[in-house]
Amino acid sequence: MRIVGTGEKRFDGALKKILKRGEADTSKVEEAVKAILDGVRRRGDRALITYTRRFDGVDLGKTGSMEISGGQLEEALDSIGRSDRQLLRKAARRIMTFHRRQLPKSWSMREEDGTLLGQRVTPLERVGIYVPGGKAAYPSTVFMNAIPAKVAGVEEIFMVTPPSNTGLNPYVMAAAAIAGVERVFQVGGAQAVGALAYGTKSIPKVDKIVGPGNIYVATAKRLVYGRVDIDMIAGPSEILIINDGTGEPEWMAADLLSQAEHDELASSVLITTSPEMAEAVSRAVTRQLKGLSRRAIAGESIKKYGLIIVTKDLDEAAGIANSIAPEHLELFTRNPSRLLRKIRHAGAIFLGYHTPEALGDYMAGPNHTLPTGGTARFSSPLGVYDFIKYSSILSFPPRGLSRLGESVERFTAIEGLEAHGKSVSVRLKGRKA
Amino acid sequence: MRIVGTGEKRFDGALKKILKRGEADTSKVEEAVKAILDGVRRRGDRALITYTRRFDGVDLGKTGSMEISGGQLEEALDSIGRSDRQLLRKAARRIMTFHRRQLPKSWSMREEDGTLLGQRVTPLERVGIYVPGGKAAYPSTVFMNAIPAKVAGVEEIFMVTPPSNTGLNPYVMAAAAIAGVERVFQVGGAQAVGALAYGTKSIPKVDKIVGPGNIYVATAKRLVYGRVDIDMIAGPSEILIINDGTGEPEWMAADLLSQAEHDELASSVLITTSPEMAEAVSRAVTRQLKGLSRRAIAGESIKKYGLIIVTKDLDEAAGIANSIAPEHLELFTRNPSRLLRKIRHAGAIFLGYHTPEALGDYMAGPNHTLPTGGTARFSSPLGVYDFIKYSSILSFPPRGLSRLGESVERFTAIEGLEAHGKSVSVRLKGRKA
Repeated sequence: MRIVGTGEKRFDGALKKILKRGEADTSKVEEAVKAILDGVRRRGDRALITYTRRFDGVDLGKTGSMEISGGQLEEALDSIGRSDRQLLRKAARRIMTFHRRQLPKSWSMREEDGTLLGQRVTPLERVGIYVPGGKAAYPSTVFMNAIPAKVAGVEEIFMVTPPSNTGLNPYVMAAAAIAGVERVFQVGGAQAVGALAYGTKSIPKVDKIVGPGNIYVATAKRLVYGRVDIDMIAGPSEILIINDGTGEPEWMAADLLSQAEHDELASSVLITTSPEMAEAVSRAVTRQLKGLSRRAIAGESIKKYGLIIVTKDLDEAAGIANSIAPEHLELFTRNPSRLLRKIRHAGAIFLGYHTPEALGDYMAGPNHTLPTGGTARFSSPLGVYDFIKYSSILSFPPRGLSRLGESVERFTAIEGLEAHGKSVSVRLKGRKA
Repeated sequence: MRIVGTGEKRFDGALKKILKRGEADTSKVEEAVKAILDGVRRRGDRALITYTRRFDGVDLGKTGSMEISGGQLEEALDSIGRSDRQLLRKAARRIMTFHRRQLPKSWSMREEDGTLLGQRVTPLERVGIYVPGGKAAYPSTVFMNAIPAKVAGVEEIFMVTPPSNTGLNPYVMAAAAIAGVERVFQVGGAQAVGALAYGTKSIPKVDKIVGPGNIYVATAKRLVYGRVDIDMIAGPSEILIINDGTGEPEWMAADLLSQAEHDELASSVLITTSPEMAEAVSRAVTRQLKGLSRRAIAGESIKKYGLIIVTKDLDEAAGIANSIAPEHLELFTRNPSRLLRKIRHAGAIFLGYHTPEALGDYMAGPNHTLPTGGTARFSSPLGVYDFIKYSSILSFPPRGLSRLGESVERFTAIEGLEAHGKSVSVRLKGRKA
């Protein structure tokens, strides 16, 4: 791995290359995606069948045949064997326990005159989860998206996933059964997003679409945003480790590689205060890389977007981390709690030597859907709060209206909105009469 | 106002006309907005000066001259007079009191083996507020956007607003001073959004852009979304009143008109179980309309997008309200709390005869930035929660890792991510050695 000190001239350039890597140009696929969305909007299920034949090479047969039955999900659950079933259930339980803590509560405050103000929490009615197919078909994706929705109280959780002539991933189907996904449809790509956004005869329109996907899926989500809600648009994954020169270099190397194996665009960065540790981790990465089955991907990622930065102290390291606002941040130091106080922007923060990022991907409990590409400056991990919304509640008794009425009338005059004022004065007059 | 019963054939068409009114075609302005954003990104302040001369007819002079000084804000505050100053302060106080209740707290849970899991809340660093100019320059806009950010703990709150050769609105400037806006820039339109999204020499890049604006502003916000966060894209305003045949028709008429005066695209709908009340409100609207200074706008809005629906009972009314998911919903009935239980989707809900919607626009406390066009199905009022983000926190002691490690290894094998597994096994091995 390349090693660079913050004092060196090439530092800025090296960092910039990593930060800019996620800026995908979607303009090329946008026209194609628009055409697909338009097709689904106008021709519904028939368009889904056409596109599925074209893009997935699968013939869904006739309209209405794209749903996976509940029986099929249960079969998949049976098929994976007892110990894996227990494993999935354990993961689901831990994820559920964590997310239950996120459920916001309705609240209200009453003023002396009886005026009641508050906010009421209600779950979304219908949510659609996109789960990629092929090699990236992960049961953890199902859990991390469906469980927060379930905890929020969403009644109808639908899942879409691309079909395959070799059959669907049994672990994904089993996870859907465990998480309580209501209905599963084997449709993928931009056409699946279109179906969830507009509704077809077979697939109902939802209120929100969540889940990862390729550039077609991401672009489709961006284009239907506003008509339905979406979660964030995920960019390539990234890890940042801050180290104080202590701990096992082999462990850090393993963590850097666990990110790099995802994707050639993934980025793995170590910031350490120790030049010796920088060398040791770099050597460990090279050595460990050789033994990996996904070494082609991981190697390319490390070469392009891997970096070891040597800083003069941990303060400088924290400053760089905040400017990157990484998806995953490991504080691999002797006193991670102290360092944590200096961290402002990160999707998930892993404290200490024994908290590898991979724990958070599956079953620690917190969500693995995290803001990427610096969006941790303003975005949160996916959570229960993404599947509820608030309604404000206002209730004024006559006395409350009297007390505030004149002020509101004056305010409406300042803003030149006369009819607003009259809606108050007509009542005040009514009371005096 | 047009009256239609739910049993009538023309009911569906009448409702659909209202629901579809907000679907603005932004494709025409999109090219122009893209060019403006690109200009600001490449030429910074110089582009801002050029566009401001072209679109606002104002010459900002030289680079760096677009900032309104703190002294000017204080002058504006002095200029509006003591009683209006008190009025604005009272409104700010009430809005602040309400929003303080929304502040989420960091939390954590500790497991028996010492594993710590939780979420930490941090405010966004920098927020930009767009405040329209001209006749739509409202001090309430400043409060409703700046105060939640302030309560969240945002350190740098910036405001942009179009300049005018006749001077800026003193109430807007006074509100900025009261709300604690850090810096104010007199730049408007898509170019102001571009400045906040990319940063220029004079205007710093922010993390999130909020606030209302015309189609250019809205389109610019949509285009920079992802690079920075944005609040919702607001559509035209709307009110829905549900009535059980009781109460004053004049009051309901006044409330309908208070919405209609905003904009020709605004929609005012009454659902009542009483045909007699329908007639009475319709007559009252016609009569009150004549006396309004904004009767041209309000009259056009009522004609095009005003509707009175007669239902057989309140259940049917609630069902229609949920399908509309209105921005403002008044439950103008004898027992509004009972009806509230049947409501699922609305931005803000106003209970009883003495809670006109206008109370919520200025100083009741709740936010007046609300989801429009049916987006209350999945969106919330603007709130403190829009100006914070969460980071997940994970801390595993050796024992916690041992307990969960093997499960995680198996999970990574299921998903075919070997390096993920090795980041765990390298540690478990290390402990046994």
